[in-house]
Amino acid sequence: MEKTSTDVLPFTMNSSGKQETVCIFGTGDFGRSLSFKMLQCGYSIVFGSRNPRMSTLLPNGAEVLSYSEAAQKSDIIIVATHREHYDFLTELTEVLNGKILVDVSNNLKINQYSESNAEYLAQLVPGAHVVKAFNTISAWALQSGALDASRQVFVCGNDNKAKQRVMDIVRTLGLTPLDQGSLIAANEIENYPLQLFPMWRFPLYLSAGLCAFFFLYCVIREVIYPYVYGKQDETFRLAISIPNRVFPIAALTLLALVYLPGIIAAILQLYRGTKYRRFPDWLDQWMLCRKQLGLVALGFAFLHVLYTLVIPIRYYVRWRLRNKTITQVITNKDDQFSTSSAWLSDSYVALGILGFFLFVLLGITSLPSVSNMVNWREFRFVQSKLGYLTLILCTAHTLVYGGKKFLSPTILRWCLPSAYVLALIIPCTVLVIKFILIMPCIDKTLTRIRQGWERNSKTSSALNGKADI
Amino acid sequence: MEKTSTDVLPFTMNSSGKQETVCIFGTGDFGRSLSFKMLQCGYSIVFGSRNPRMSTLLPNGAEVLSYSEAAQKSDIIIVATHREHYDFLTELTEVLNGKILVDVSNNLKINQYSESNAEYLAQLVPGAHVVKAFNTISAWALQSGALDASRQVFVCGNDNKAKQRVMDIVRTLGLTPLDQGSLIAANEIENYPLQLFPMWRFPLYLSAGLCAFFFLYCVIREVIYPYVYGKQDETFRLAISIPNRVFPIAALTLLALVYLPGIIAAILQLYRGTKYRRFPDWLDQWMLCRKQLGLVALGFAFLHVLYTLVIPIRYYVRWRLRNKTITQVITNKDDQFSTSSAWLSDSYVALGILGFFLFVLLGITSLPSVSNMVNWREFRFVQSKLGYLTLILCTAHTLVYGGKKFLSPTILRWCLPSAYVLALIIPCTVLVIKFILIMPCIDKTLTRIRQGWERNSKTSSALNGKADI
Amino acid sequence: MEKTSTDVLPFTMNSSGKQETVCIFGTGDFGRSLSFKMLQCGYSIVFGSRNPRMSTLLPNGAEVLSYSEAAQKSDIIIVATHREHYDFLTELTEVLNGKILVDVSNNLKINQYSESNAEYLAQLVPGAHVVKAFNTISAWALQSGALDASRQVFVCGNDNKAKQRVMDIVRTLGLTPLDQGSLIAANEIENYPLQLFPMWRFPLYLSAGLCAFFFLYCVIREVIYPYVYGKQDETFRLAISIPNRVFPIAALTLLALVYLPGIIAAILQLYRGTKYRRFPDWLDQWMLCRKQLGLVALGFAFLHVLYTLVIPIRYYVRWRLRNKTITQVITNKDDQFSTSSAWLSDSYVALGILGFFLFVLLGITSLPSVSNMVNWREFRFVQSKLGYLTLILCTAHTLVYGGKKFLSPTILRWCLPSAYVLALIIPCTVLVIKFILIMPCIDKTLTRIRQGWERNSKTSSALNGKADI
Repeated sequence: MEKTSTDVLPFTMNSSGKQETVCIFGTGDFGRSLSFKMLQCGYSIVFGSRNPRMSTLLPNGAEVLSYSEAAQKSDIIIVATHREHYDFLTELTEVLNGKILVDVSNNLKINQYSESNAEYLAQLVPGAHVVKAFNTISAWALQSGALDASRQVFVCGNDNKAKQRVMDIVRTLGLTPLDQGSLIAANEIENYPLQLFPMWRFPLYLSAGLCAFFFLYCVIREVIYPYVYGKQDETFRLAISIPNRVFPIAALTLLALVYLPGIIAAILQLYRGTKYRRFPDWLDQWMLCRKQLGLVALGFAFLHVLYTLVIPIRYYVRWRLRNKTITQVITNKDDQFSTSSAWLSDSYVALGILGFFLFVLLGITSLPSVSNMVNWREFRFVQSKLGYLTLILCTAHTLVYGGKKFLSPTILRWCLPSAYVLALIIPCTVLVIKFILIMPCIDKTLTRIRQGWERNSKTSSALNGKADI
Repeated sequence: MEKTSTDVLPFTMNSSGKQETVCIFGTGDFGRSLSFKMLQCGYSIVFGSRNPRMSTLLPNGAEVLSYSEAAQKSDIIIVATHREHYDFLTELTEVLNGKILVDVSNNLKINQYSESNAEYLAQLVPGAHVVKAFNTISAWALQSGALDASRQVFVCGNDNKAKQRVMDIVRTLGLTPLDQGSLIAANEIENYPLQLFPMWRFPLYLSAGLCAFFFLYCVIREVIYPYVYGKQDETFRLAISIPNRVFPIAALTLLALVYLPGIIAAILQLYRGTKYRRFPDWLDQWMLCRKQLGLVALGFAFLHVLYTLVIPIRYYVRWRLRNKTITQVITNKDDQFSTSSAWLSDSYVALGILGFFLFVLLGITSLPSVSNMVNWREFRFVQSKLGYLTLILCTAHTLVYGGKKFLSPTILRWCLPSAYVLALIIPCTVLVIKFILIMPCIDKTLTRIRQGWERNSKTSSALNGKADI
Repeated sequence: MEKTSTDVLPFTMNSSGKQETVCIFGTGDFGRSLSFKMLQCGYSIVFGSRNPRMSTLLPNGAEVLSYSEAAQKSDIIIVATHREHYDFLTELTEVLNGKILVDVSNNLKINQYSESNAEYLAQLVPGAHVVKAFNTISAWALQSGALDASRQVFVCGNDNKAKQRVMDIVRTLGLTPLDQGSLIAANEIENYPLQLFPMWRFPLYLSAGLCAFFFLYCVIREVIYPYVYGKQDETFRLAISIPNRVFPIAALTLLALVYLPGIIAAILQLYRGTKYRRFPDWLDQWMLCRKQLGLVALGFAFLHVLYTLVIPIRYYVRWRLRNKTITQVITNKDDQFSTSSAWLSDSYVALGILGFFLFVLLGITSLPSVSNMVNWREFRFVQSKLGYLTLILCTAHTLVYGGKKFLSPTILRWCLPSAYVLALIIPCTVLVIKFILIMPCIDKTLTRIRQGWERNSKTSSALNGKADI
């Protein structure tokens, strides 16, 4: 009977008229910001401090006591001091016994210590229930209410009841708790705020490499070559002309690289005759950063569009067009209108616009709030069907751009073809293989494999795979 | 006393230090993915399987037993098998009595069976509390954590307590439960993942129809007519010139159709003298897809902008401009600068840019995460005031584009006026009626009707309408 | 014992098989819409009405009784009548004793009454637990499910248990409750739906002022000056040329104003030698609307881009280019290609494009759903590092635009320099000061101050600041 009533206690307290008291150890910025917010949301706060009388800037209504006095006032204690000063807690083990200790600390470097701060705290005060929380929240944002950055509070701990109570507090403060499981997860949670776009690293490095290579390639063909052979100063091309060759190439290649891992996975499954074997790690990694690859590609496509649209206001282009007109007037040569040139120029541009339009659509649907509104079938329709259509349009745009002179030897300079020819290799490969994969005979096998069928398997397992979802 | 303690049990268990055990029937993809996620979040898992010893690929820490043994270990059982194999459950009715059965299944087609899978399950095992949940979540997304698509889990069931417990699990997994009421809703929930943009269907069909009509119309006027009368080959216009007539027309018409139902509704209310009668169904449907209509219109406007901005880099345009210059040089005719032409050209362009800018703003505020941040008054201000301003600017843009030659008979070809003249009909109608509706005398009546006043009503009802919110 | 069982009652009821009954006073639009939604979500509804038999349009399944009869059926009563009619509640004080009264009302004007409606209600029925909720939700949106506008329900109340139960209802309806603390917050909550973009007001007024000033300035230099001295009619410049000077100036100035307050704050902290003194109010206000300032700047930058890209399709520009060619043909002057002009023109354009691209990136990351996905370090990286890079690129764009003629006296008209020269003042100042602030010696002091160090402080306080988070 006694035990049950203790179990129910947290809920009873929470829902009784009386305010719940939370104790905060440490009167630094974060402790104070948190206390402001908690006071606002109806908690009563008591601070534990080394020098209760020296503490300043604390919010009205908060009490400041010595550590042990403060700890006795509440069964939830938020430890808002740096890990280096945790040792003072060893003197309080008795009073902290059975209490909930919330570790809110962060480190300065990823994996700075061998164990996470929260696990260290749990070792120091073995009798307490340690819960990791709040470390992703900024003190400034808490106090100003300007929670533009994440409202997500990752919570972990070995004691479910303690975790639940901390998550209740998180919710009451208007934040979103995310249960990450047991205290082992604390290490990951502590590393999280120190990360800088980990999923974006590979796509960004890759695209930087691609850009550097193609930039150099174009410089050789379009700046160094004419200088060597004609002593022409074409350096001004570095600012717009060459970037406007590099960016579309990067965009198209990266877009193709979004769809390449899916094709490799399909080939692997066909080859193995089963879907029940793990893909190699690099393929898994690649598949997980497809969204980022696609968005980087969209960035390059956007730049390509802007670089293309400013063409007519460039000095060089205006000068060239003027010169062409003047030459024509002087030589009195007739400028016959060529319908095929008009078709080529217009369809190249139209394909590019439609491809870019679909690309922007794909980008918008990958916004978290939009993708949260669609169901799985819709998401796959957009990202797969529309995505392939985008790839087809953009590849066609590049092919038509080449037009007649596509592989003619006259465009070779030092045996180097135009850069866009290289850019077509990966997209065309992807499209050709995809085309083969969707041919009925192969597609049927693949679908069966993906539904759980295995080429070399005992009946029972196949049955099992078919019966269950 | 006994009963109360049973009632409290779920909460006690949930918040006690002990892990809650969940049973999963079926070891297919979805069952396994769900078990991975649940193990991560601190549940303990026991699988029920036909051949416990044959089951492979199961996560570490999960136990595999026969169905009846597994069912005894937990009072929540997730049924992760296809509906076609539900009959095995009939043998387990005794052990399943009083337990919570979670139906996670989906069908292959909308309304495939006469009753929903969850209701069928409830008939098979009448003693169990059936809850529908998790069917909108993808197995792959669950396991990879890449929940780009919906995090929303629709939950329904006849037993509130059972539903609540399932919703607790959903929350613990970091997903968002949405209570959809009793088990009757299961049918709708099962159809949901099979839908493909149902709200977008009408706007897309409508715009496809509009585009087809205007495309044909323009082809007749601009390709067939010159061919018939002058044997000119103008087919190259199909790629850019004609789409760039069709897209703005579609954009303007669709934008006007966003505001037309509101006007029809206002006229209906004025005519009926009350707001307490339902609108016809087609009007309700139309009003609910206004957002989609507007976004499709924005897509066309975006395409129109791109098609317009590439004009100066088109071969045809460059050729025409060059020819014009050459002709002028040769004929030595003076090209006088016309201030009125400059005004017309500039104001037409400026109106278009401003209209498009506001249109993009409207589009951004309709993003779910943005519209969630504004209050109702702000949302209405943007969508109504800014929306009408956009419509006015875009209509003015089209009117000024026509300029002096607007209705001059010289632009008729085969008695067909320019396409943009047709495009103006709906927007101008909408704007004129709206202008009449906001005139003080009419606006006052309308406002009174919308506040609950009725033209032909007994006093009491009117009073009632006024007193309550 | 008796008390405990009452305390547990809400949870028991909620989780028992029986439906929870909610009472709604008032059968107006909002009451009815709410009842529809609640019936859908499994509640049973009883209406309280003055004339139970006169009430029409109520949903099937809802009972209508007199006020006192209805109140006895439930312990949660939603008061859906206007504040002016609250007095009928005074007759029901006895039956309402101990019940939860939910105030959903709104006013027509901000601070219409001296106390909030909810506090007024609490005074009228002192025995009831008043909770403010649902006032931000629109009746129409509730019923149609088209909750495009906010799903957030602000909740406040003095009784935690009552508040918790209302928040449970909010969650069950699929809405998001936000606990705002005690009933004092009701005033703010009631004002919220009446606000119209309060955070945007200052940025919009400021930019309107900026635009007006620079528009006038440009009109004087480019329309009035040529008219006075050359009788030239340059009024057509009002439509595009002059806006395309004003918009980039506004964009650049506003972007600089986003970063100015941070710099002022740093100087203040350096001067005071501590971070523990509040900034003046105007600085706090300024810092809180930086996001809005930045987005308005992005709007102007977007307009500038569009206005620039349409340059080649303007009548005036085509006429000027044609004239230039013709003059050149006639005078037979050689038009030498100038590499430096090409460099200047191209790099000016390229800087502008890159600046705009980063600016758009900043805008996208400030979307709520995107900024919710990044951690605090990533958010600061984007908004600070990328933000300064954007400012540098845009300032460089303007500087290169000026090119050689930057401060040459020939561009003065009536002693007025070109408008863009004025536009450079604030951005250059910000960049220069920022450059000084990041020099190692100053940066080190600033970092120490921001970590809690104080120039003139007793040791203990400094220690305190260092030990706690």
